[in-house]
Parts: sequence; structure tokens; C-alpha cells
Amino acid sequence: MARYLSITGGVGGAKLAVGLAQILSPDEVLFAVNTGDDFEHLGLHISPDIDSLSYALAQENNKELGWGRAGETWQFITTLGELGGADWFRLGDKDLALHMRRRQLLDRGDTLTQATHVIATALGIPHQIVPMSDDPVRTIVHSDQGDLAFQHYFVKERCEPKVSGFSFAGVTTARLNPLITDWLQDCDGIIICPSNPFVSVAPLLAVPGFLAAIQSIPVIAVSPIVGGLALKGPAAKMMAELKMPATAVAVAEYYDDLLSGFILDQTDAESLALLKLPAIATDTVMVTLQKSEALAQDCLAFLAALPRKTLI
Amino acid sequence: MARYLSITGGVGGAKLAVGLAQILSPDEVLFAVNTGDDFEHLGLHISPDIDSLSYALAQENNKELGWGRAGETWQFITTLGELGGADWFRLGDKDLALHMRRRQLLDRGDTLTQATHVIATALGIPHQIVPMSDDPVRTIVHSDQGDLAFQHYFVKERCEPKVSGFSFAGVTTARLNPLITDWLQDCDGIIICPSNPFVSVAPLLAVPGFLAAIQSIPVIAVSPIVGGLALKGPAAKMMAELKMPATAVAVAEYYDDLLSGFILDQTDAESLALLKLPAIATDTVMVTLQKSEALAQDCLAFLAALPRKTLI
Repeated sequence: MARYLSITGGVGGAKLAVGLAQILSPDEVLFAVNTGDDFEHLGLHISPDIDSLSYALAQENNKELGWGRAGETWQFITTLGELGGADWFRLGDKDLALHMRRRQLLDRGDTLTQATHVIATALGIPHQIVPMSDDPVRTIVHSDQGDLAFQHYFVKERCEPKVSGFSFAGVTTARLNPLITDWLQDCDGIIICPSNPFVSVAPLLAVPGFLAAIQSIPVIAVSPIVGGLALKGPAAKMMAELKMPATAVAVAEYYDDLLSGFILDQTDAESLALLKLPAIATDTVMVTLQKSEALAQDCLAFLAALPRKTLI
Repeated sequence: MARYLSITGGVGGAKLAVGLAQILSPDEVLFAVNTGDDFEHLGLHISPDIDSLSYALAQENNKELGWGRAGETWQFITTLGELGGADWFRLGDKDLALHMRRRQLLDRGDTLTQATHVIATALGIPHQIVPMSDDPVRTIVHSDQGDLAFQHYFVKERCEPKVSGFSFAGVTTARLNPLITDWLQDCDGIIICPSNPFVSVAPLLAVPGFLAAIQSIPVIAVSPIVGGLALKGPAAKMMAELKMPATAVAVAEYYDDLLSGFILDQTDAESLALLKLPAIATDTVMVTLQKSEALAQDCLAFLAALPRKTLI
């Protein structure tokens, strides 16, 4: 039995995670999730990436909106706005229940990892969803409007500020989640989902000890950029602002020697020749569960065919 | 211009308060509200009586349910239950927004009085809704199942335990709301709404200084017991358990020499002869706004016709 670690952010990455969960048992894959987007709001602890993944794995993700929970309603946040409360972060009525439950669990002394497990179990998810760390790491967006907390940049300012870089407050003292450390003791491959490299994947890579722990494990990434566009979120806009070409090749170059292999979309197949590492082109636009599963299969086959990493 | 203080609990009393608000301007009536029912739940400060009155005065009360907010939905609490959270206190999605807004206001340093004012204003209510005290007073129900916090008795246990008495934790050190103290400096009459005498009215009467401040002011009460039944809530059940007859007369005797006059329902008109104080019988069953307004008019006319209190 092979065991994989899948690194994912929110909605975009979760599409591949769902495919992996279709073909891998809970003993075969662990989902390591970015918590750099987490924030405290209305007295709640909100973990957008953990929640997006949880909803997706529970098939409770809202397909009409492309984010949030299925069958969502908005009475709470609408009324809060009418009463003069802060309504810029659109918390749905059902989604709010998850955050309140997490608040209760954290208040009773659960770690974020434990709270995530309780909630995932209640949602019927057998797979392990593991926050990258139980210590707070907060992504700060450096922009032409100053340093912004991630959700302020992402939701309140609708990604409009021009970014110049990112930092991850707290990361230097954050402890890598012990469940991840343990999993990496016996792990055959790492799959970086098509999540934003700068704000969904980079925070986890920055947690002390993670890169050292994966030195001997093959790592592949699926490009979140297809045909020069990000399928979801501000990745392409960020790349332009960071003076990078908004291309799959630039994503591969950003990850640099972390990667053993790279998967880009068939749309960008002509770019394969530009890459200096093993790469394949396939259909990465996961508009159906079948396509998610097919891409997951492609990932495993690609990993299996890669030459083993040699320790430096 | 005459000025009145109206003492009220939640839903039952609010029906008369709505009538008073129809015929009296914000300069003519102040609503002094029980906070003994208040409690902390899910990190929120819930003030059931203040909220019932606010919804009623804003014509946002839920007429189908008889409690809570109009147009309510239940996605939050249903989902919270599914996730393993405490769902015994049925917080509606819209109602929850009010509690969250109050939480924010209290967290920024507002008193309960200030938070209540902000929310009432947002709901379009011109009248003053004033908590009896900004200090916490919590009604404890002594019962055959032990001492129960009020909402545990009322909601969680559905008023099933047999009561033997009540206490109001914190009341001896609670400070009467200064807005009430000021109002009573120039007040022509006090109207006790048809609220539960033991758990809606008694907590306010127990706040130090209140009884002394109203010595020279005529006080009338409207019976919450009609034909031996409580129109709303557990008042009649409590009276039986306290070995009192569940009658309007017993309510008048409970209030004792606090009262200058008493109003009971026309159903109980034959009891007028049993009362030792000025009393009238009228239609107190406020099934429409018109009936609320008519009873409010009856209250003012009755108060005007009473002999002035003489200071002892």
C-alpha cells in the first residue's frame, strides 16, 4: 500500500483532493491544509481552507456559488448588516454553524486538529483533514495599500490591491502538525493540489521542518494556471503583479527544485518543452467528479513513473 | 404631559407595551425590562425579554410561533445540531444576528443599556427599552430537580420541574438602571404588564432602590392570569406548585400593597368583589394590535381615576 500526502488550499485544490479521496482510502492519503487564511471574526475561528476541503469531501460544497456550503441561506448576515454589524465576510447560516461548533470545541480545549476531526466526522468524512499546524500562522499580503490580513485583502478588498509579496506571521515558531510529521515517516509521494502557490501552498512549505522532512519523497504539483488564467482566485493577477509571467511554466519555476514532477493542463501542452523537470499534460479542469478522479489517477501514475529522489 | 413607567417581561407583557407605544410618545413612556432571564450561550449574551419587546415594538415579532422574530429560519441551529453542537436553545438565523450584534457592542465596551439602544434604533424603535440593571442578575428556579438557571428550566426542561421558589443571583449588588432612577423622578404612574409575576416582574422589584423610588407613584398591574390560565408561559403552573390558587385575585394578593389598582380580564369580573383594592375588569386578551391599544387606554384611564398615593 502506497501512502500519499496531499497539500491543498481551498476550493481549487479541494477539487483534486476529492478525486484523491475517491481512489485512496483514509490509510492511503492525508490532506495537509493551509491555515494561513484563518482568522478570528465575530468571536469565531474561521478556517476557510479546512472548511472548503471539508465541504468538498462531504459533497456539501456549494456548486452554484463555487464556495461555501450547499443549500446555504443568508438570513444571519443580512440581518447582521441591517443591525449595523460587520457584514463584509458573507457567513452563510449553515456555514456559521460550523464556525460556532469549532468555537465550542476550541473553547473546551480541543486543538484545531481535534476540532477539525470532530467536525469532519460529523460531516461523514472518513479521510484525515489535517491543519498544517495547530499554532497560528497568518498570511499577510504586502500591497500598494499596505500590509493586509489575508481575508481583508481577499474578501473585503476583493483582491484589488496590487501585491508585492507575502509573509506568514507566526510561521517561524509554528510547530509542524505532528500528524504530518508522523505521516511523512512513511510516505511515497506528495501531491501539491492546484492551489495558489503564494498564499495556499507557500505557508505550509514555510513551516519549520517541513521541507527537511520531505527531502527523500517525490513531490509533484498540478498547475493552478491554465492557459494563462487562474481557474479560481487571484493567482494569475498576483503573478502579473509580482512581475512573473502568468503561466504554468512560471508556477513550476516558482516551486523550483522542490518538485520531482509537474502536471499542466493539456491547453498548455506546448509548454512541456520549456520545463526542466519531468512533466505531463492532461485534463486538469475538474468540472465533474469524474474529471477529479481521472486527474487523481493521473497524479498517482505520474508519481509511480518518476525516478526516485536521491538524497543530496 | 404625563409620564409612565411600564414594567415588562417578554412576549406576554410586550403585547401591552405595544399598545402603550401606540398611544404614548417616547417622552411619555419608558419600558423597564426584566433581565433575570438573560444568559450566556454559545459565547453570546442573550436577553430574551429585551429581545421579545424589541421585536414586538418593531412589529418584527413572530406571530405564528408566538416568540422570536418574524420571517425566521432555522438553518444555523439545525446544522449546529447535526455537527454535534448544543441545539436545545432554538436560535433562529435572524435572531442570532441580533445576539451577535449585541456581542460586538458589549465587546467594544457598550453597556447592555447602550447596546439595547443601538439595536432598538436599528430596528426603527423610537421608544426607550431599558434593562432593569446593567449588572448581571440571574433568575434561579428552585425546583424538585434542584436549582436551575432560568433558561435551563424554561427551555431545556420545558418548565417541567416543579418549582418551590426563585432567587435572583446578583440582585443585591445590582444597581438600578440610572435611566429608570431618573425617569422615576418625574413619573405619574407605573403599569405592570401582564407578565409572569415571579420571574418577569419580581426580579425588577428586587433591584435595590426600586421600591423606595416608587413609593409615591401609583402602580397598577394587569393580570397575566385569565380564567385560571396563563395566556403565555408557566405562571399558572408555578402558582399551583407554589400552593397558590391560579387566579387573578392571587396575583393581586402576591403584589400586595405595591399596587394602587388592579386590572383583570372580563372573564374574571365576578372576582372584583374579592379584591381589597381599586380594580376594573376589561378585555385583556390582546389578540390584535387594536386590543393592545384599547387595553393601554384602559390602563391610562384607570390610573388617572385612582386616588393619589399618600406617602407613609
